Amino acid sequence: MKRAIYLKKKSLEEAKAIVAADLAKLIHLGTEVIPVIHSAGRVLSEPVFAKISSPSFHCAAMDGLALEAERTYGASEESPRILRVDSEAFFVNTGNPIPAGTDAVIMIEDVHLVDSERVEIREAAYPWQHVRAIGEDVIATEMIFPENHKITAYDVGALLAGGHQAVSVKRKPRVLVIPTGSELIEPEQGDPGSIAPARIIESNSYVLSALVSEDGGEPLRHSIVRDDPAKIKEALLSSYEKVDLILMIAGSSAGSEDYTRSIIEEFGEVFVHGISIMPGKPTLLGRFKDRPIVGIPGYPVSAIMAYEELARPLLYQALCLMKPSRPRIETVPTRKIPSKLGTEEFLRVKIGKVGGKFFATPLPRGSGMITSLTNADGLIRIPAQSEGVNENETVEAELLRPFEEIAHTVVMVGSHDLSLDVLANLLGKFYPPIFFSSHAVGSLGGILAIKNGFCHIAGLHLLDPETGEYNQPYIRRYLNGASVRTIHLVYRAQGLIVQKGNPREIKSLEDLSGKRAAFINRQKGSGTRILLDHLLNTLGLDSRQIQGYDKEEFTHMAVASAVAGGVAEVALGILSAARALDLDFIPVAKEQYDLLIPSIYFDDEKIRRVIETIRSEEFKKMVLRMGGYDVSRTGEELT
Amino acid sequence: MKRAIYLKKKSLEEAKAIVAADLAKLIHLGTEVIPVIHSAGRVLSEPVFAKISSPSFHCAAMDGLALEAERTYGASEESPRILRVDSEAFFVNTGNPIPAGTDAVIMIEDVHLVDSERVEIREAAYPWQHVRAIGEDVIATEMIFPENHKITAYDVGALLAGGHQAVSVKRKPRVLVIPTGSELIEPEQGDPGSIAPARIIESNSYVLSALVSEDGGEPLRHSIVRDDPAKIKEALLSSYEKVDLILMIAGSSAGSEDYTRSIIEEFGEVFVHGISIMPGKPTLLGRFKDRPIVGIPGYPVSAIMAYEELARPLLYQALCLMKPSRPRIETVPTRKIPSKLGTEEFLRVKIGKVGGKFFATPLPRGSGMITSLTNADGLIRIPAQSEGVNENETVEAELLRPFEEIAHTVVMVGSHDLSLDVLANLLGKFYPPIFFSSHAVGSLGGILAIKNGFCHIAGLHLLDPETGEYNQPYIRRYLNGASVRTIHLVYRAQGLIVQKGNPREIKSLEDLSGKRAAFINRQKGSGTRILLDHLLNTLGLDSRQIQGYDKEEFTHMAVASAVAGGVAEVALGILSAARALDLDFIPVAKEQYDLLIPSIYFDDEKIRRVIETIRSEEFKKMVLRMGGYDVSRTGEELT
Repeated sequence: MKRAIYLKKKSLEEAKAIVAADLAKLIHLGTEVIPVIHSAGRVLSEPVFAKISSPSFHCAAMDGLALEAERTYGASEESPRILRVDSEAFFVNTGNPIPAGTDAVIMIEDVHLVDSERVEIREAAYPWQHVRAIGEDVIATEMIFPENHKITAYDVGALLAGGHQAVSVKRKPRVLVIPTGSELIEPEQGDPGSIAPARIIESNSYVLSALVSEDGGEPLRHSIVRDDPAKIKEALLSSYEKVDLILMIAGSSAGSEDYTRSIIEEFGEVFVHGISIMPGKPTLLGRFKDRPIVGIPGYPVSAIMAYEELARPLLYQALCLMKPSRPRIETVPTRKIPSKLGTEEFLRVKIGKVGGKFFATPLPRGSGMITSLTNADGLIRIPAQSEGVNENETVEAELLRPFEEIAHTVVMVGSHDLSLDVLANLLGKFYPPIFFSSHAVGSLGGILAIKNGFCHIAGLHLLDPETGEYNQPYIRRYLNGASVRTIHLVYRAQGLIVQKGNPREIKSLEDLSGKRAAFINRQKGSGTRILLDHLLNTLGLDSRQIQGYDKEEFTHMAVASAVAGGVAEVALGILSAARALDLDFIPVAKEQYDLLIPSIYFDDEKIRRVIETIRSEEFKKMVLRMGGYDVSRTGEELT
Repeated sequence: MKRAIYLKKKSLEEAKAIVAADLAKLIHLGTEVIPVIHSAGRVLSEPVFAKISSPSFHCAAMDGLALEAERTYGASEESPRILRVDSEAFFVNTGNPIPAGTDAVIMIEDVHLVDSERVEIREAAYPWQHVRAIGEDVIATEMIFPENHKITAYDVGALLAGGHQAVSVKRKPRVLVIPTGSELIEPEQGDPGSIAPARIIESNSYVLSALVSEDGGEPLRHSIVRDDPAKIKEALLSSYEKVDLILMIAGSSAGSEDYTRSIIEEFGEVFVHGISIMPGKPTLLGRFKDRPIVGIPGYPVSAIMAYEELARPLLYQALCLMKPSRPRIETVPTRKIPSKLGTEEFLRVKIGKVGGKFFATPLPRGSGMITSLTNADGLIRIPAQSEGVNENETVEAELLRPFEEIAHTVVMVGSHDLSLDVLANLLGKFYPPIFFSSHAVGSLGGILAIKNGFCHIAGLHLLDPETGEYNQPYIRRYLNGASVRTIHLVYRAQGLIVQKGNPREIKSLEDLSGKRAAFINRQKGSGTRILLDHLLNTLGLDSRQIQGYDKEEFTHMAVASAVAGGVAEVALGILSAARALDLDFIPVAKEQYDLLIPSIYFDDEKIRRVIETIRSEEFKKMVLRMGGYDVSRTGEELT
């Protein structure tokens, strides 16, 4: 078992300095001449001087009468001047050249016709009044734009007006993206159902290609290369000369089949291997022959972070442009965020604007979870010297979504239910643009989020064992008479989710302990956990007898997925989750799921839209279709 | 002479409401299915659910040893467990499936080989440690994105991982752009030299097409249509069915050849004609058959404002997206900005960050000047109810350039010289990304800008008639001993700029009055004006005898252009301006042009770069090449 050893890990700052110096100097973009009409977004490789003036002749700036100003001197209401049309005064439209001998335009509104051949002028014109003189906008030979200027849509107008049909621009940096890994398959081989076991659909190269395009580069994706040093060398040797930068995905961590480093050492040089960032640690910086190469880690979030922190700045530097920075806002974390000392962490967070504050809730930190980025509204950078962020400490977040979208987002926290996806979808369909963000932390977590002011809506299904009543007793207990209103969402069936065909023949909760089936639980504070404990208590069952009682997941889909994947044999959850994954379901209870909304948000337009959507026929119809729901009172306000 | 009359003008707010209601309801985008790998930036037309889970099998999250956790329970340094390789424990790399019967991975760093067949485990593993379980990232059947979601580069990864190769998205809105006007020529007909008199190069349609593309639409440009109602009808009738929106450029003002409105009335309906905005007043909103149409004014700035305020929101609404808003900052105007009551004005401004404040300097307001937009850093909206902004009132500006670029810009104010273009170009070439903004207000204006803290550098060439000394006497007089330093830029020749071949045979300043040649002057406070007055005084000439002495322009190129275009016969200016426009030049004086820099900015990196550029050989060489310059002391600090 061969084990590569990282070079001494570099800080992100050190790595960036190496990119800006050692990698950047290897890039030599040529220039190309392109039509001006397609030049928006490109970067000038030389200054541009106007070839012609704009306007190129003296022209009328208004519709009216062109004349020689001197002829009107002294004109007034009392002693108007009479001029002959077509010899002393000429009708012109805006943009028309003014006839030779004229030097002013009188607005059509101020012209008084005497007859078809004569006009009366009642106010003197001054020379060059309402005339656009030659070169008013652009003077021939003047510099319009300097070298390294990035052409905007507006600039296209100035270039054309300055007499240019083509401009010389920097060639787009060509970026070779090579995905490596014997476990990978191309997306078109990944038909659901026919996907071979232990195969992973390659997606990183397409994400990076899309990012390269956004950054002004031209991606060239190589097909998947197996973990075979000969194949990897072949891929590099056959392509490196065509490109300005190489991104080599995976193969740079410390595993047994990671050949990237030794190949780069053979044909070039490794400058950095290992950077103290998370995600993104196994990033490599080097040179393959005379081309810069970045070894990008294979996990999707690591791949993106490595690209954005190291390859993106290189592309902007090559184009002599300033890397755009994301907007930043101050956020309040909804919980303490510990972080590893010595590593700069990029924490993905959901950001919700509630009651004038921006709250940041950390998303899962696993670098294999692309959804932790696609669900994120922002990134919080926790510096290497920090051990994390405390709960009430404000912290700056970089926004991944436009500020306005975040401000237009309904923030829901609490228990998970599949009908919330239906709600999110219909809300955005009926009332775009409006956004719905839900975060599953369980029913009690939802109540606490309302108490702390973190969300607009909490979703809960909390059974009070003493009264058999749902939700209201908890609201009274935890919210201390705060002014909140309750909208009923659904009744739903909870039951035992078991594998297809129910191989362990589980019929009731008693079988959990009786048959020693592997159980997977929901987290403490979730309505489902409270329901389970109540049922066990009623039945006189001992949770310690249930194998897996301590193993917790946060959503119905997560426990159902655990059953589907064989991690567990049984879970308590909702019918729709079982159906979605084609599992069997043994109903054990019907429960009430309500939405809790602070009264102050009740008149907020966003919240009204949510309630209107819940009350729509389409919502009810789609929820019923998932199975296990009763929508007879859906949308009613409870008192 | 036919005169169209505007409908009662609408406020911008009213016009926007009509766009959002009457025009938007005419757009019905279809959907299309496209490959996921090309879907970044598009908008989902239906929710997307995962087809497969990701990962789709339990896999190692680390390189190491897969085993059954239970076998390690109780293991410690003192009592390690020995497991057999390939039957009880299996080497796996990150991403590999874990073999059946195993449920945990021990990191390779913690594995101790006994021999080639046995390993020693010194710490218990817990079940599912370092394992990515099925569906950890995406669970099959879960909603990944809702309808109307705009796909990002990151999302491409989640879609591919969820088993999708194609997605259904909203078709891009197709936008027909029709330029009208008999005076227009296509850019490719506009070869400098051969351009027909009174012809204007059509550029608006290309600017609007570029903006449509940026806004997610698909532009279809029609060729130029002459001002002929039959041709305009033909253009509309032959194309309207292919598109979702029509932008008809020009033809909507109140001139004699503006047919747009009557044609729209014939085939549809005019909702709005005339909006109280400046630029952009003659905008028209209507319906041609069943397609929305926006009549866009013909002046370039008006065209862009009308598009951005009215057509852009329509495209975003059709795509169910939120229109992105520009970043805004508080700025301090460098002078009072009066504005017309009852009209909402979009004022283009240069914004400079100097000494921690953002100063906004208004650019020319003419809607024919595309350079007033391409030179602008921001827009200030002056509401219809306002008569303008006072000098010390802060006012919000929308940024047209990234905030960082503005903060990286050297702000120079003062006298105009062509060597400043050379400086700007070389600065951006030698030290990208760095930006140079210069604003011509004359030498005295430059000193006052330094005094007011508006700029980093002032450029001046002010002769003190009493001492014959340049600049320093003025600095002492106006700056009251403030700490400033002076860098000498160039010596340059000032002289009389006359038409090619000098038809009026002007030989000296005396001829200005003697020959009654039409003169064009520079503005009060400019060094050239002070030089002129000094020379006239020395020669005992009376300025009242000079025809055109009161006509002022702000730059050397502007007066030279006036001579070239026949607006004047003679001007006082620099040789390089005369040469640039192929005019004759009669030298009358050599003067000293210096840069004034407050000492506090002297160590600013940007300013050091400017001085390094001035001292470069390339700068001197390029300046010499323009003619009329002496660079023998260029770059020296004067004391």
